[in-house]
Amino acid sequence: MEPVNGSWTSFGGDLHLDLTERRAAGTGLRAALEDALREAVQAGRLAPGTRLPSSRALGEDLGIARNTVVEAYGQLTAEGWLSSRQGSGTTVARRAAPSPAVRPARPQARRRTVRHDLMSGRPDLSLFPRTAWLAAARRALATAPHEALGYGGPLGRIELREALTHYLARVRGVRTDPDHLLVCNGVQQGLGLLCAALRERGARSLAVEEYGLPPQHAVVRAAGLTTAPLPLDCEGAQVEHLGPRNGAVLLTPAHQYPTGAPLSADRRAAAVRWAREQDRYVIEDDYDGEFRYDRQPLGAMQALDPERVVYAGTAAKSLAPGLRLAWLALPDALVEPVARLKVLADTMSPVLDQLTLAELITSGTYDRHVRRCRLHYRRRRDHLVAALAEHAPHVRVTGIAAGLHAVLQLPPGSTPEPELLARAEAAGLALSGLGWHRAAPADEAAAPALVIGYATPPEHAFPAALDALCDLLRRA
Amino acid sequence: MEPVNGSWTSFGGDLHLDLTERRAAGTGLRAALEDALREAVQAGRLAPGTRLPSSRALGEDLGIARNTVVEAYGQLTAEGWLSSRQGSGTTVARRAAPSPAVRPARPQARRRTVRHDLMSGRPDLSLFPRTAWLAAARRALATAPHEALGYGGPLGRIELREALTHYLARVRGVRTDPDHLLVCNGVQQGLGLLCAALRERGARSLAVEEYGLPPQHAVVRAAGLTTAPLPLDCEGAQVEHLGPRNGAVLLTPAHQYPTGAPLSADRRAAAVRWAREQDRYVIEDDYDGEFRYDRQPLGAMQALDPERVVYAGTAAKSLAPGLRLAWLALPDALVEPVARLKVLADTMSPVLDQLTLAELITSGTYDRHVRRCRLHYRRRRDHLVAALAEHAPHVRVTGIAAGLHAVLQLPPGSTPEPELLARAEAAGLALSGLGWHRAAPADEAAAPALVIGYATPPEHAFPAALDALCDLLRRA
Repeated sequence: MEPVNGSWTSFGGDLHLDLTERRAAGTGLRAALEDALREAVQAGRLAPGTRLPSSRALGEDLGIARNTVVEAYGQLTAEGWLSSRQGSGTTVARRAAPSPAVRPARPQARRRTVRHDLMSGRPDLSLFPRTAWLAAARRALATAPHEALGYGGPLGRIELREALTHYLARVRGVRTDPDHLLVCNGVQQGLGLLCAALRERGARSLAVEEYGLPPQHAVVRAAGLTTAPLPLDCEGAQVEHLGPRNGAVLLTPAHQYPTGAPLSADRRAAAVRWAREQDRYVIEDDYDGEFRYDRQPLGAMQALDPERVVYAGTAAKSLAPGLRLAWLALPDALVEPVARLKVLADTMSPVLDQLTLAELITSGTYDRHVRRCRLHYRRRRDHLVAALAEHAPHVRVTGIAAGLHAVLQLPPGSTPEPELLARAEAAGLALSGLGWHRAAPADEAAAPALVIGYATPPEHAFPAALDALCDLLRRA
Repeated sequence: MEPVNGSWTSFGGDLHLDLTERRAAGTGLRAALEDALREAVQAGRLAPGTRLPSSRALGEDLGIARNTVVEAYGQLTAEGWLSSRQGSGTTVARRAAPSPAVRPARPQARRRTVRHDLMSGRPDLSLFPRTAWLAAARRALATAPHEALGYGGPLGRIELREALTHYLARVRGVRTDPDHLLVCNGVQQGLGLLCAALRERGARSLAVEEYGLPPQHAVVRAAGLTTAPLPLDCEGAQVEHLGPRNGAVLLTPAHQYPTGAPLSADRRAAAVRWAREQDRYVIEDDYDGEFRYDRQPLGAMQALDPERVVYAGTAAKSLAPGLRLAWLALPDALVEPVARLKVLADTMSPVLDQLTLAELITSGTYDRHVRRCRLHYRRRRDHLVAALAEHAPHVRVTGIAAGLHAVLQLPPGSTPEPELLARAEAAGLALSGLGWHRAAPADEAAAPALVIGYATPPEHAFPAALDALCDLLRRA
């Protein structure tokens, strides 16, 4: 944009002052301005330290003589509301009222003190590649056309959908294309949109794994579907229980969340067969598919039938949950309804992070980052396993071939889970019990088990967290 | 993170290959690997040009000897699927199959050719301050704690809510605090959350202005509320028609969208009185509150009663719609229900843009940018008015004291609106008719009127767009 003449370059900021009412009540111009400014400072609308517009700029804004503003500023400075210093303009005095107190602050939920964070479902946020991300953002913004910043289609930016098409094919074996990918704000939103679309098609019940993520179950129910739990065993969810009543099934085939078993090949085939025969859908939540350590990589189940399996992936584990970047690879029949619901929800997902992630993927930086994280987390897992073998050999560690968490199963007769969790909380140790993950209340009390997110703490805090955990388990 | 030894530094990317099934069928290891790689290239899962992992890295990943990988790569290079060059590793050959074609591409909606874009509701995207945005992002990321990248509360990042509290108080007279601000993905999402919360409280009908934004009306209806249109006149919406049936009213008090009148002081007071007496809410959509040109700035109506008026603001006009950054200043009673619905919708809004906007505001850059845009758009508006006065003096231009659009009213007996719109489309001129904005069908055909977004085209394209518009109107 060409430079404009006028006062804006010398202007510290915008200021809303309404003189109309005061003028209508017969107050003179300068007095009205003084009143309005004084009231704004007193009420805290203008915070201490705020720089006021220059007298010239404010005069132009209000359509009054500059001198009137100078006089009003002078009066309020004399009264102590404003402070004026050569060269730095006029600011609101520091002794003036603090931030706007419209009403008492809302009571905050009591936060227990967390000294060791082993909550599952979170990556080590200190690994977020800040420098690489900014560099990718710069490259992305340098080449993005202006229209990329405007309103676009509900599927998301084409740059990211193209990058994901190739990346997901290569790394997870997903079979899709940019016309069938939808970028959403976290899997949470994607699941909500899917459930709403399924309900429109007549679904009333979604089968879920017996153990899972309660916030996901809440999203399903908010969309008007009931959750029907499927029992789990060492081959994953017992999909033979799927029936005509279920409108779809939500599975974590690569690494059951949280118990850790992969869904067996037979069960994968059976679930797809059920979906075909009953005209139903499988939702594959591939929440940590990029993190596998010992066994052969398990490809996405979606490849078995892209018209029956919805693939849901995310950057929450590989980069950061705060990005809220996730994607759905949709069957053709679901593209229109899900995209329509996305428009109603929020038009489309924010574009800058999409452009940046696309650049990160196509430049190869994302692959290198994931690989680095994988080695990092594998080391963490090995430490966890070794420490438990030494200090708490009675604990069985499961679900560790992949992912960022482990399930620790205590022998029957150990301290009951609620008591164990209370002790953990008292020790400042944040973790969750397996019981919290149940999709429905259990018939009988199970043996206690803990879900441990070993990726969560930053590197320097991991050893102490591990010590605290071992200490808890030794006495369990 | 400390450097790790291992193969990742030499690794070009991740690759999913499933050898299990082939091995189970009796195929030898090298042949299984060749088959899997060949299939991945043939099916397009590995795009031409993709760099393969080094033989060492892939061998380690698959737990097989490096030599087996070397031999398989050699065989496939001989067959022409891969290409191998000294120093640049092994890549998928360019002549191999192109991108994954799971199914034929979806038919695209026919896009008419737009030569001149005067659609309203959009800023000039070429004004987006890319350099300043990146600089603010860098500063924000340099200081953000790691936890800022994780899961946070549904209201949004505290940095942005604090910056907005002061900014909105100063510039728009809004009375709120960080505990009552919620960051959402565009006003579209905020409105949807509000309507859902109001419906939970028993609302069934939302009063809207007779002319407005049909996509907003769709959101209201999707939340289960009916839209009840209020007639408009030169003082804005006739709020005296509000009754006990309406659960809330959606207004654009600063600059009625699209007709342009500000809501009069009496009407503002009356709407708040109605809300208090009936225990109802006013939703104030302040979509372009920062852009005013001639008249005294009109403060936000929310200041009249922060417990009865929900203020909705956005960065869509001041920065870019693609950011999907908007905010609600909520009455105390609505914080819990709206925040709860936000969690169900998508947990929270993405954090990086929030941190960047907070930095942009607190550094004063945002104010300077808005002021620059305002001068830019005012010049545009003056050009529009001057051009119409010269070339189409029969057209009445209204709603131009503020905002980024104008309404052009043609005298009765002019070319009917649909015919005028068809002519515009034929001339490659994108604009909308006033009729499209109606919340309910009209009883009788109104005189034709056009809604012109004069901010939309980039600077270099504006004169030609103006010429095309004048040309259309001369013959109307």
